[in-house]
Amino acid sequence: MLLSEIEHFLAEDIGYEDYELFVPPKECTAEIIAKEAGILAGLEEASQIFAYLGVQTATKFKDGDAFAAEEVVMRVQGKAHKILKGERLVLNFLSRMSGIATLTRTFLNEARKGNPSVRIAGTRKTTPGFRKYEKKAIIIGGGDPHRFGLFEAVIIKDNHIKIMGLENAIRVAKERASFSKKIEVEVESVEDAIKAAEIGVDIIMLDNMSVEDVRRCVQTLEERGLRDKVILEASGGIDLSNVRDYAATGVDVISSSTLTLNAKSLGFSLEIVE
Amino acid sequence: MLLSEIEHFLAEDIGYEDYELFVPPKECTAEIIAKEAGILAGLEEASQIFAYLGVQTATKFKDGDAFAAEEVVMRVQGKAHKILKGERLVLNFLSRMSGIATLTRTFLNEARKGNPSVRIAGTRKTTPGFRKYEKKAIIIGGGDPHRFGLFEAVIIKDNHIKIMGLENAIRVAKERASFSKKIEVEVESVEDAIKAAEIGVDIIMLDNMSVEDVRRCVQTLEERGLRDKVILEASGGIDLSNVRDYAATGVDVISSSTLTLNAKSLGFSLEIVE
Amino acid sequence: MLLSEIEHFLAEDIGYEDYELFVPPKECTAEIIAKEAGILAGLEEASQIFAYLGVQTATKFKDGDAFAAEEVVMRVQGKAHKILKGERLVLNFLSRMSGIATLTRTFLNEARKGNPSVRIAGTRKTTPGFRKYEKKAIIIGGGDPHRFGLFEAVIIKDNHIKIMGLENAIRVAKERASFSKKIEVEVESVEDAIKAAEIGVDIIMLDNMSVEDVRRCVQTLEERGLRDKVILEASGGIDLSNVRDYAATGVDVISSSTLTLNAKSLGFSLEIVE
Amino acid sequence: MLLSEIEHFLAEDIGYEDYELFVPPKECTAEIIAKEAGILAGLEEASQIFAYLGVQTATKFKDGDAFAAEEVVMRVQGKAHKILKGERLVLNFLSRMSGIATLTRTFLNEARKGNPSVRIAGTRKTTPGFRKYEKKAIIIGGGDPHRFGLFEAVIIKDNHIKIMGLENAIRVAKERASFSKKIEVEVESVEDAIKAAEIGVDIIMLDNMSVEDVRRCVQTLEERGLRDKVILEASGGIDLSNVRDYAATGVDVISSSTLTLNAKSLGFSLEIVE
Amino acid sequence: MLLSEIEHFLAEDIGYEDYELFVPPKECTAEIIAKEAGILAGLEEASQIFAYLGVQTATKFKDGDAFAAEEVVMRVQGKAHKILKGERLVLNFLSRMSGIATLTRTFLNEARKGNPSVRIAGTRKTTPGFRKYEKKAIIIGGGDPHRFGLFEAVIIKDNHIKIMGLENAIRVAKERASFSKKIEVEVESVEDAIKAAEIGVDIIMLDNMSVEDVRRCVQTLEERGLRDKVILEASGGIDLSNVRDYAATGVDVISSSTLTLNAKSLGFSLEIVE
Amino acid sequence: MLLSEIEHFLAEDIGYEDYELFVPPKECTAEIIAKEAGILAGLEEASQIFAYLGVQTATKFKDGDAFAAEEVVMRVQGKAHKILKGERLVLNFLSRMSGIATLTRTFLNEARKGNPSVRIAGTRKTTPGFRKYEKKAIIIGGGDPHRFGLFEAVIIKDNHIKIMGLENAIRVAKERASFSKKIEVEVESVEDAIKAAEIGVDIIMLDNMSVEDVRRCVQTLEERGLRDKVILEASGGIDLSNVRDYAATGVDVISSSTLTLNAKSLGFSLEIVE
Repeated sequence: MLLSEIEHFLAEDIGYEDYELFVPPKECTAEIIAKEAGILAGLEEASQIFAYLGVQTATKFKDGDAFAAEEVVMRVQGKAHKILKGERLVLNFLSRMSGIATLTRTFLNEARKGNPSVRIAGTRKTTPGFRKYEKKAIIIGGGDPHRFGLFEAVIIKDNHIKIMGLENAIRVAKERASFSKKIEVEVESVEDAIKAAEIGVDIIMLDNMSVEDVRRCVQTLEERGLRDKVILEASGGIDLSNVRDYAATGVDVISSSTLTLNAKSLGFSLEIVE
Repeated sequence: MLLSEIEHFLAEDIGYEDYELFVPPKECTAEIIAKEAGILAGLEEASQIFAYLGVQTATKFKDGDAFAAEEVVMRVQGKAHKILKGERLVLNFLSRMSGIATLTRTFLNEARKGNPSVRIAGTRKTTPGFRKYEKKAIIIGGGDPHRFGLFEAVIIKDNHIKIMGLENAIRVAKERASFSKKIEVEVESVEDAIKAAEIGVDIIMLDNMSVEDVRRCVQTLEERGLRDKVILEASGGIDLSNVRDYAATGVDVISSSTLTLNAKSLGFSLEIVE
Repeated sequence: MLLSEIEHFLAEDIGYEDYELFVPPKECTAEIIAKEAGILAGLEEASQIFAYLGVQTATKFKDGDAFAAEEVVMRVQGKAHKILKGERLVLNFLSRMSGIATLTRTFLNEARKGNPSVRIAGTRKTTPGFRKYEKKAIIIGGGDPHRFGLFEAVIIKDNHIKIMGLENAIRVAKERASFSKKIEVEVESVEDAIKAAEIGVDIIMLDNMSVEDVRRCVQTLEERGLRDKVILEASGGIDLSNVRDYAATGVDVISSSTLTLNAKSLGFSLEIVE
Repeated sequence: MLLSEIEHFLAEDIGYEDYELFVPPKECTAEIIAKEAGILAGLEEASQIFAYLGVQTATKFKDGDAFAAEEVVMRVQGKAHKILKGERLVLNFLSRMSGIATLTRTFLNEARKGNPSVRIAGTRKTTPGFRKYEKKAIIIGGGDPHRFGLFEAVIIKDNHIKIMGLENAIRVAKERASFSKKIEVEVESVEDAIKAAEIGVDIIMLDNMSVEDVRRCVQTLEERGLRDKVILEASGGIDLSNVRDYAATGVDVISSSTLTLNAKSLGFSLEIVE
Repeated sequence: MLLSEIEHFLAEDIGYEDYELFVPPKECTAEIIAKEAGILAGLEEASQIFAYLGVQTATKFKDGDAFAAEEVVMRVQGKAHKILKGERLVLNFLSRMSGIATLTRTFLNEARKGNPSVRIAGTRKTTPGFRKYEKKAIIIGGGDPHRFGLFEAVIIKDNHIKIMGLENAIRVAKERASFSKKIEVEVESVEDAIKAAEIGVDIIMLDNMSVEDVRRCVQTLEERGLRDKVILEASGGIDLSNVRDYAATGVDVISSSTLTLNAKSLGFSLEIVE
Repeated sequence: MLLSEIEHFLAEDIGYEDYELFVPPKECTAEIIAKEAGILAGLEEASQIFAYLGVQTATKFKDGDAFAAEEVVMRVQGKAHKILKGERLVLNFLSRMSGIATLTRTFLNEARKGNPSVRIAGTRKTTPGFRKYEKKAIIIGGGDPHRFGLFEAVIIKDNHIKIMGLENAIRVAKERASFSKKIEVEVESVEDAIKAAEIGVDIIMLDNMSVEDVRRCVQTLEERGLRDKVILEASGGIDLSNVRDYAATGVDVISSSTLTLNAKSLGFSLEIVE
């Protein structure tokens, strides 16, 4: 985190407040305790926020580790008014990031029952202003962040195709995008997937297709000798109940906005232990 | 939204990208369509973001209105490359804010079966950097935002009590906090609630108490003639399954972090219709 | 102070200047000396600004202490070019903040001759961009900062009443404002004060009333059993010459913009002593 | 004003508040009325702030004009909640800037009785973060802003002389400062003034000297043929009671921190007139 | 450009200055005239900067067009003090961006004599804080911007290889980088190029190799059936004198820091024509 | 450099990237090696950037020293992923600043063959957002930065003269500009130079005049006893081939945009040496 980010996030909670006027600046120790089990994420941010406030932190965990309910995930030491100034922000980071990391891990484990090398990826459906940390939590959970924003890999989506046409959009992208970027096309039918593979793109996203259609798409591309030339990504309507089946179709990547949109925040509390 | 906020959020998704290089700047019309029913929130933000990009918007809805699945919640008109530049940010705002407004409304409706004048309030457990919009979505849903940050109403919590003692903490707060702020105390027993009411505070938060204990607390305060002197807030472990019972105890406010932590984001899509 | 605030304020005075080109980076000691007596405020900011510049500070004072003319209020040690870079900003902080703290203390002492428990409060009439420090100086002087900005306690003022009507404005405020905020009404007659107290608000500001009217207002409210239900604040036209009389009326709070608008800045100088 | 400045200053007062929730967005007209006479400054800022909020302004005045008590200095028209959002910030600008412009004008008129071509200048003793507007108010009042910050004209002050020696400091300044900057030396004796003029500098500040000493200094420099080669500035301990005498000594410039430090803010109020 | 960027760049040149005090706000027309021929870039930025200042612009050119010496590339109309406020910033944008676009076009034309489909790409050797515009100027000139920063395509460079080893670095990159990013390896020998192609990467940069070695590398990869699986980029020591020969080797991309480091800024002047 | 500047510049290159995911955080030593000889500038910035990243630096050089090709100009020690995060930004600073310092030194040496006390000055033709460092590099090279921006010394240029007239523009400048600023006039003929000197300005810029005309101008001013009253600056069309001749004319300053516009960036590389 940049210092300017720490100050931006802290200011949201603290405003003009001079907490020392209310809480005495006496030396304290506190513990951050998990209320439920999960995969830890946000430890690095927690340390940086407390360091900014002059509060020391120690932990036996590292980001990505599993923890049990009731475990102490971090110990902190410093002036009481400084600890309490950072408490809510730190817990909000741990809570949201660990929630995403935990769901990603679960998703990944389930998917790998269907295909041990499949990747689980996020999307751009994130909380405005907090994408960096939501994408990082996906990585910590074992997932793939996918492109960060519009400025990375060119993705030709349904709206682009409506405006420009599939073949023309691919042509424009190949001509104008830097050679250093991948080009991905989002298709909704086996036919378009084959067409895209024949024209030549780096990634084909099979959007909102049934497991059956995805499987048929993989097979058809294999039969035509096109399978190895593209990365196949399945997306749309995939959740814990069917991710294993989608994985078993042989696609390379499964992306799901559920990792960020529907991750349940995990509970943590900070307790002064003297 | 401040212009600086719009630019901050847009930059996260767009980076250095000059989208016109890829998408032709032709005039388009598009619709934002809801994938599922809910309470709308984020319309004002959507309009401001598109206005910044020179894209015009129109809608028959206003924030707080109910909408059905498949309904068009907003129509937009402008250059294709500008619409697509704002698309994801606008949808992320609508999705997250409407999710919170919808859950708040459901929570409120359920609670009011137990007590038609009870308030449903949020907490400071929000996504870092996005609290302003999450609190606003609670208001749009019919809820009470509760204090925005540490700088508002003084809340004496368990950690303050550990450090300063209950009575001393209240004394310090009364002495040092501005007369323009309310003082709230978080207690975990009927005894402490009574003690706090006797010393005199504005709000008492009954934290993590059973419905039974909350009811007993309300009655005891009534018997002692203290009920009218304080606002009673129940908090901790309250969800849709029990909010009606907590409301029926006669407390004034029920606060729950679930409104922001566990609200399911609603699905919206933007479709070019030319 | 946030680092971004220190850099913002320093940049105003320093611009692009590389002071080392002109002043040799040799180790120096300097003293900050008061030109006149007063109540000290801004010490914490002075230390933080010099710390940012790598300059060490020491003082036997703390914010809120009284100091005499000619006293050394702070000693600083560091590279000459760094001390001189921070000199003017530090002195401007001390000068403005101590001026406000000193006037607040004087005001408070005078008021307490009339009523030993009255509070002296500031207003929102502050220098744009510097309110945080002006409000803090009031606190250091023994005063009450009053609400920081529009986002805190709802105050229904004459313009609101003109637009919405007194009773309607109170009703809207009670309905829409968070339960965590106080509601204050500004009235200009005894009748309106009583009406507001009857409807029920947290604070009534008696605006621009004579001492006589304020006294009559307090008495009438007492007679009607409403006095204990509201905080009474007198405001408008109150200065050192009459604050004691206003205090003696029995109001709880006296607010005055004179604390920030007309505080005389105190003189300090920084002298290199080798 | 930059948009970022307007947003920075507004945010201080408004925070996260959505004022429309409380005040209905109905079209209103309002007047800004002066409570006392003075020289107007801050009109341009007032217009820009209201324009940012979508509120229209009209005035028969321009910055620098004199106004009488009870005069309407500006009329504004727009949505009620927008007018009230900007009210306090606009009044704070007018109040502080007009206060400085008015004092500057008074100071100037008094000084010019002693010397009709003397300049009245400010100093760097300003409110942190608000210097730009305080210097501008001095200009509007008819004064000279003096250098804005350390990055402009090199001024060799007592501390520099202690560290580097008078002659050496001048030598270093001449060698290292850009030819595009003036070099000024602050002296406390007639002897040093002469020495500085002989070495050759652009401006000599006669600091904390009596009227008599200043006059003697001017005469001595004239006698030695050095008077025309330097600009003479008197500074230190000059106020309304003696500025005429200092002016009559024949110096070119009189600078005084009193213009910014002790200017009385003028009262303005905004009243909705429907 | 974001508004915040325009204000950031303008503030560097204007500071606190209120130019209207010096230049009368009278309506003017001015022309921006090229002093020498070239390829135009920066027109969009010029229009945005002037639009921010309320100055209108018109031009028959678009970015990427060729212009002759003495041609008027833009006409502007507005208040004199606003035109002069933006003059230098606008000219600096046009001057630097057109310089880069012009050199890129020349480079490209020369390279395409050797291979009509080769791409000419930039590097990350840009002016701190101005990369976005330097990369855009390369695109306008017909070049490829290459990756914008470290956050895009993973490039394994000599230092990474020293720390991690070639094969291990590729393995780590494939494992940890998002599937949406390309992986590039920088090699200095034909042997390493073949090794990298065999392991499988997206792009191989042939760094600081002679034309002969590059040609040999292309041939060997073709013989081994690896040529079509990778993009080949030649880099290091390539300038106008040899770019045609490097292009003729059959590589896909030639990258050169000379496009940004050594582009000669083109001269433009703005002249008031009434 | 302010911390906010370091973060601004770093963010341009690093974005959201967490480099530790790819490069192991092991302790390393690296050297920064010059590819060609020159005058060093940017060392201070290099140290500050690395210090921000927690990387230690050491060097036997100081800014302004000459270095030979292949010399190690700085040694750095720290975590590998931190060194590589700062590498490109540090090298871009050294490269651009040393390029300018080196050209300035060469220019100065050549000019001083014609006149050993002449000053070589820069202009405002700099890269937007990077002026501070380009001006500093000129100083390090031995040059004079000239005024930083419009807010410093008033320069009356051709466009001002077209709008306001020469004599009127000087009159307005003398009246309205602070006495602390110099006034410079840009003239294109000997006649205007004399007129300006007679009216009285601080600096006269002889713009785009031949060596012969400049010499004639100096002589005429001497003959008329005006030479000592003004600083003479020659500008326009001056490069290494003729700077000596211009210097020999007896002007005080030679300014040239070539110092920033056409300085060749010097090559540096950072090599991990374990």
